[in-house]
Amino acid sequence: MIILSCEENCIFCKIVSGEIPAAKVYEDEHVLAFLDISQVTKGHTLVIPKLHEENIFELKPETAKQLFGVVPKIANAIKETYKPLGLNILNNNGKDAGQAVFHYHLHLIPRYGKGDGFGAVWKDHSSQYSADDLQLIAKEISSSLK
Amino acid sequence: MIILSCEENCIFCKIVSGEIPAAKVYEDEHVLAFLDISQVTKGHTLVIPKLHEENIFELKPETAKQLFGVVPKIANAIKETYKPLGLNILNNNGKDAGQAVFHYHLHLIPRYGKGDGFGAVWKDHSSQYSADDLQLIAKEISSSLK
Repeated sequence: MIILSCEENCIFCKIVSGEIPAAKVYEDEHVLAFLDISQVTKGHTLVIPKLHEENIFELKPETAKQLFGVVPKIANAIKETYKPLGLNILNNNGKDAGQAVFHYHLHLIPRYGKGDGFGAVWKDHSSQYSADDLQLIAKEISSSLK
Repeated sequence: MIILSCEENCIFCKIVSGEIPAAKVYEDEHVLAFLDISQVTKGHTLVIPKLHEENIFELKPETAKQLFGVVPKIANAIKETYKPLGLNILNNNGKDAGQAVFHYHLHLIPRYGKGDGFGAVWKDHSSQYSADDLQLIAKEISSSLK
């Protein structure tokens, strides 16, 4: 048995504890997967750590490993079931990035073709950066690694 | 030293081997992170396994763990450097899901506000599914878990 750090008023913690029902796809000691009620596309699944960690910035490396280690298995089960053309994995961190529930979660979104409900707005800015600019940005980020 | 299963004509394998240059952010025995030249937003970083695995369906659990275990560290370095409002993580599997390079990669996309270059098309279909429909879908997927 593990002690969960359950947050009051967190809907995903309540799904973990069983207080709120969900359509569960997968469960182990550390990870729970269940359907997103919005079903952006059919089979749209959320994968969450049972421990309440808010976002990728807070996620402990161990939690990240437990979580992502089971994602290939769940993705393959979705593929096997609905034979999608592809699958997107999305994680939103922060309100400005579209995060709506502040308990870490990965969206697994099977794709069935254009207009299926999901897509990405994607603006290429490569013309604005020289190779030297990129090296500088990479250096700035890598020097902040802890 | 590990033996890499290097694919001919895979641009990311060539970045791993050093044949093609990249603006590297992070590197360990199993994982490489470097800037996406499209810089959809400033600091847009790719995190890849050094081993050539094409997509989430092929990704071995061990590779998935090695890869995602270092993502919080890289995300925090981006946050520390550019103070974005948020961060999206996106992974495209299959041409129809937007995959352009067929070597597994996670996009880390810092967010600076609307119109910054990235966004999600997101259609809520919750009105089309009853609680029973969701239970049936979850059952179909979970029965395909291997």
